[in-house]
Formats: sequence, structure tokens, C-alpha cells
Amino acid sequence: MSETFPTKPEVPRPTMIDVARRAGVGLGTVSRVVNGGHGVRDETAQRVRAAIDELGFQRNEVARALRPGKKSTSLALVLGDLTNPFYATIAKASLEIAGQSGFAVVLGSVDEDPEGEKRAIQELVSRQVAGLMIVPDQGDHAFLEGAGVPVVFVDRPATGIDADIVMVDNEGGGRLATEHLLAQGHERIAIILAPSYYTIGRRLRGFRRAHRAAGIDVDESLVIQLPEGNAEAAEKATHEVMLRPDPPTAIFASTNFLTEGVLRALGELGSELESEPAVVGFDDFRLADMLPTPVTVVASDIAELGRSAARLLLDRASGADTRPPQRIVLPCGLIKRGSGERPPDSAAKRKPR
Amino acid sequence: MSETFPTKPEVPRPTMIDVARRAGVGLGTVSRVVNGGHGVRDETAQRVRAAIDELGFQRNEVARALRPGKKSTSLALVLGDLTNPFYATIAKASLEIAGQSGFAVVLGSVDEDPEGEKRAIQELVSRQVAGLMIVPDQGDHAFLEGAGVPVVFVDRPATGIDADIVMVDNEGGGRLATEHLLAQGHERIAIILAPSYYTIGRRLRGFRRAHRAAGIDVDESLVIQLPEGNAEAAEKATHEVMLRPDPPTAIFASTNFLTEGVLRALGELGSELESEPAVVGFDDFRLADMLPTPVTVVASDIAELGRSAARLLLDRASGADTRPPQRIVLPCGLIKRGSGERPPDSAAKRKPR
Repeated sequence: MSETFPTKPEVPRPTMIDVARRAGVGLGTVSRVVNGGHGVRDETAQRVRAAIDELGFQRNEVARALRPGKKSTSLALVLGDLTNPFYATIAKASLEIAGQSGFAVVLGSVDEDPEGEKRAIQELVSRQVAGLMIVPDQGDHAFLEGAGVPVVFVDRPATGIDADIVMVDNEGGGRLATEHLLAQGHERIAIILAPSYYTIGRRLRGFRRAHRAAGIDVDESLVIQLPEGNAEAAEKATHEVMLRPDPPTAIFASTNFLTEGVLRALGELGSELESEPAVVGFDDFRLADMLPTPVTVVASDIAELGRSAARLLLDRASGADTRPPQRIVLPCGLIKRGSGERPPDSAAKRKPR
Repeated sequence: MSETFPTKPEVPRPTMIDVARRAGVGLGTVSRVVNGGHGVRDETAQRVRAAIDELGFQRNEVARALRPGKKSTSLALVLGDLTNPFYATIAKASLEIAGQSGFAVVLGSVDEDPEGEKRAIQELVSRQVAGLMIVPDQGDHAFLEGAGVPVVFVDRPATGIDADIVMVDNEGGGRLATEHLLAQGHERIAIILAPSYYTIGRRLRGFRRAHRAAGIDVDESLVIQLPEGNAEAAEKATHEVMLRPDPPTAIFASTNFLTEGVLRALGELGSELESEPAVVGFDDFRLADMLPTPVTVVASDIAELGRSAARLLLDRASGADTRPPQRIVLPCGLIKRGSGERPPDSAAKRKPR
């Protein structure tokens, strides 16, 4: 996924540590120099200032990061299953940004367990982190109001609290995928949905809006709500819907793992179908281009989700950003690879027996 | 990868937090009760003791975790690119184990940058973590000797320091892959190697030993050392070796990303080759079974690497394990899926033009 949006290799911004190393002093000395230079020898202070200038630092940036009384240089990141590349990409990107400002990241990984998530968050708050990035589970997050640290939600908003949120345009992405299938003449499009996360609801809304705009009714029996959000559940549901007398000619899978399950089912059904339905997935995934039919996806820059969240949180933690809660929405794009470009006339029909 | 070795869902061990919640008190109160009960009302102490008994805790386990003077309940984990599922799996597993004992994990992710790694480690040590888990980069780690915290290395040992190491049987895995190909009659097997990590060297040693045991000479021109350890480098090298007048009939790719590169090249070459060479990869990866030819791999339980390392480190940090440095080696197994079972007579020859 990280490879989908190649970006220029960023020159890492220098950190406090670079300044200290360059000047051959400790972090504390850098701090004292920036905050007035009390108790630092002139020669040493001179060296620190030279290092700051050479590294192209903004003086106030240093001052902010080293403000006296600042308690913590750790951020916390709470998110789901790290072996899901979606979460791993967010973690990697936010670590990079935090590290550039000399912040460490404490990680809490909790998978679909609101109680566990609450406990993990309280644990992290008690460790006096400077701020929290949270990919929130369902459930009320009002308990965070009194936590006394800035919070940035990632990928989806939380209920019960008004805070910054960085997310992708789920509704736009859902609409884009559906419009692409409709434009090729598909009128029976199934949508496979993970349990009711906010993001999935928005993707479904985009699916419905695209149908409405095209003047085509949604067959509600093709709106398939899974009991669980994993590949196995999607595989089973795809089996069932494709073996109905009136199967869809296209499938929109609403997450990367669901796309995998849909493709598994179609691979197994293979010879039982006259031809395969078109498939579009939400979120890109590694090897999507190497499968027997390369997979068309709607995708966004997941690494940028993590970077934006970390930047915003650092600015909140330092006091540099005092705006009311922001809502940052990243766009989705369509990556055509083949599976989403099958026309309906060649698409799935069950072979007569 | 996490799906390769299904394990029984573990019942999570109760944590200090569970005891505190059950008794309706704070962690500090649990600590005071366990350490003698000074300043705690009898009734409250009674409740805490009941909670400990009900949750099946060993009293000394609680005492150890709450030992007075204990400074930190954080572990640090330093590893490579989190979007490599290999590292993500280690991170996830160690987080789970740490969390069960009430420990948080601070993450440092550094990719092939020994200086950056050193800086990240020093940063983390200065945060007074209770211990370090490190997937070490190349370069001397002697600077850790004086760090004053226990260190467990994961996946590969570090030079310059004698510490615990949890790893997989790289040599055994390399031998297993090679023996599998030799047993099918392959005598020209290429091995694609990432730059000289310890693990890769061991896998190569296994490759050589298997040849020696079979009485077959290794063609040194088929021992291919890549300049970089990514899929692109492996793709390029595979192109080159397969278009030689004397191409190999089998390829052993020494990491998951290299396997991807080999398969990409073979896919592109497709019609230029009379048939494809056999391919065995080291380490399993998601979707390996869904590629046009499902991929045979040598694999080990990567999650168990992370779990073992975290368990060992917690025992070192608590003082429960005072043995000399240990070396824990997990076995590798072969997962046959098709790509590694192509016989040499049907294997790659360049089509006559």
C-alpha cells in the first residue's frame, strides 16, 4: 500500500538531537541556550546557536519543543491489528513524523474490543503522553474529554467527543467505485460490508448516491452486511450470492480484507461460473497487481493519514495550533487494473448443468 | 503470515489492572496491599486479596510486577519497516504479551540505517524503559553494554554484545528449501540473496550444505547477491539470470520481498520462457496461496518470535530470569503450494527464436 503513492524521498527535518549532536552537548544544554542561555558558558552557547543555524532550524521551533515545564516527548497511538497493512502504514508514517520532532510513540493495539481500547487509552494517558492518536473503535469516547491531553482521531470520528479527525473521503470513494461499475453497464452490483463502522456506512452512502444519480434502483438483497469484517466472512457471502439464481454482475468489496475474501470465493467457484463478475475493492493492497486478474481498487494515501495526524497532534501538543477541532479529509482515487473493467455481458452467470 | 500457524486463542493472563478493576481500587492500592498493606483499610485490602485469588494470580507475580522502586512499565521495541508484515507480526505479538503484564511498548522503527538505529536506541534508553527488544541492524552494538537495561535481540544477533537472542533456524530453513528442490531433480538452483544480513548468510549456508550432502556442486554464478534487499532488485536479477543461455531450473528467494520480485519477473518474462522455474521463498506472506501459481515457502512462526522475545524480556526486567544470555531458536517448516513442486524437465528454458 505504501508503494501506491510514490512520494519524493523526504529529507528528514533536523531534530533537537541533531542540534545537540552537532554542538557536542546534551539536550538539556540546547534547551537552556534556547531559553535564554542561563548557566551555559558563552562558548558553548555559541556552538549551539551555530548548530541551530547550520541545520536550518527555526529558533521558535526549537523553543517550542523545549519549552520549560514540558512534561513529555511521547505520543500515544492506539489502533487495530498491526498485521493489517492499513494500520501498519499509519503507524509507520506517524512514527516518522513524531521522530523528526524528537517524539517517541507508545503503541496500543486493540482489535475490535471497545472495553480493551478504553483500558489501553487510560493506561497511556496515565503515562503522561503529550497527545493521543486514536483509530477509534465503536463505543462512546466521552471519557476522553477529561483526559487533559490533545486527541486526534484517525480514519474515523469517535462519538461523545469533539476532536480533530483525519480521514479519507469514504463517501466519495464509494461513489467513485460504483460509478465506475455503472459506467460499464453493470446494473446488478453487490456491495459487501463489514460490520457497521462509520467508514463502511459512508462507503455505502456513496454506493447509493451513485445509483440514484444514474437512475438505477439498488437491489437491497445485494447489500450484504457481514457478521464479521474478515476475509472468511466475505468469502462465504460471495459464495452464497454468486450461486443465487440472479447473481450480481459486479461486486464492490468495502475493505482490503473483504476484497481478499471475495477473490478467494471467485477463485474457488471458478468453473461453476460462466465468467467472473467485475470486482472493485476499497483500499489498495500488496500484490493486488499480481493476482490472476489484477485488482481494481479505490485507494487513498494511507501514509498521509498517519503523517497528517501526527503533524496536527504535535502542533496541538506544543500549543502552536489552537484552532477549534479540525476535520481533514483526504481524497480517493481509482486504480484500474483489470478486475473492475469486466463488462456485464461477459460477467458471471452460473453455468447450466 | 499470522494465519500460517493457527494457534489456540490464548486466554489472556489477568493483569494488575484487572485486579484493580475487580477490587474497584487504583493500581497504587493494589501495590500497597501486595507490599504489606500499609495505609490501606482492612476492608479494602481484603477486597484486593479476593480479586487476586479470584483471578488466579500468583501472589509473587503481583509482588514482582509492583515491586517498590520499580521505575518503568514500558518496554521498547526497535525494528525495521512496519509495512513489512514480518516486522508488523513481531510488533503485534510482543505488544500482546507486554500488555498482558501491564507493560506498554514504545516503538522505534528504523530501516537499514545503523546510525539512526543507534540514536533511536539511546533515545529510548533515556526514557527509562524497563527493557529493549531490538531487531538489530548491522553495526556494532557494544554501546548497549552500559545501557543498564536488559536487551533481547530478535531475529538476529548483534555484534559487540552478548545478550539474549530469539531467532528462527535460518540454516535449517535454507537447507529444507534446497533439499526440497534437489529431491525433485533440480541441479541448477539459483539463490537470490539480500545484502549480507546474518540471517541471509545462514540461509545460504543451508543452501550449500544441502548441495554438499547431495553431492552436487553449487554453480557460483547462481549465487546472486543483490545490492539492495527489495523486490525491485530481485526482479531485475531474476530477469538477468533467466535470460542467460544456461538459466537455472529453480530459484530460492531468501526473503518475502525477494520472492515477490522473483515472481514479478517470471510473470513479465512469461512468454519468453518455455516454462517457469520452480520457486521456493523464505517466509510466508499474505496472498501467497492466491497467486497464479501458489507459492511454496519455508516458514516459521513469526508471531512466536515476538511473543518469546517479550516473555523473556519481561522475565529479565523483573529479575525472575537471571540465567546467562539465552539463544532461543524456532524451527522452520515447508509449506508446499505448487511453485516449488515443478520438476526440472518442465522447467524454464528460453524459447528458441
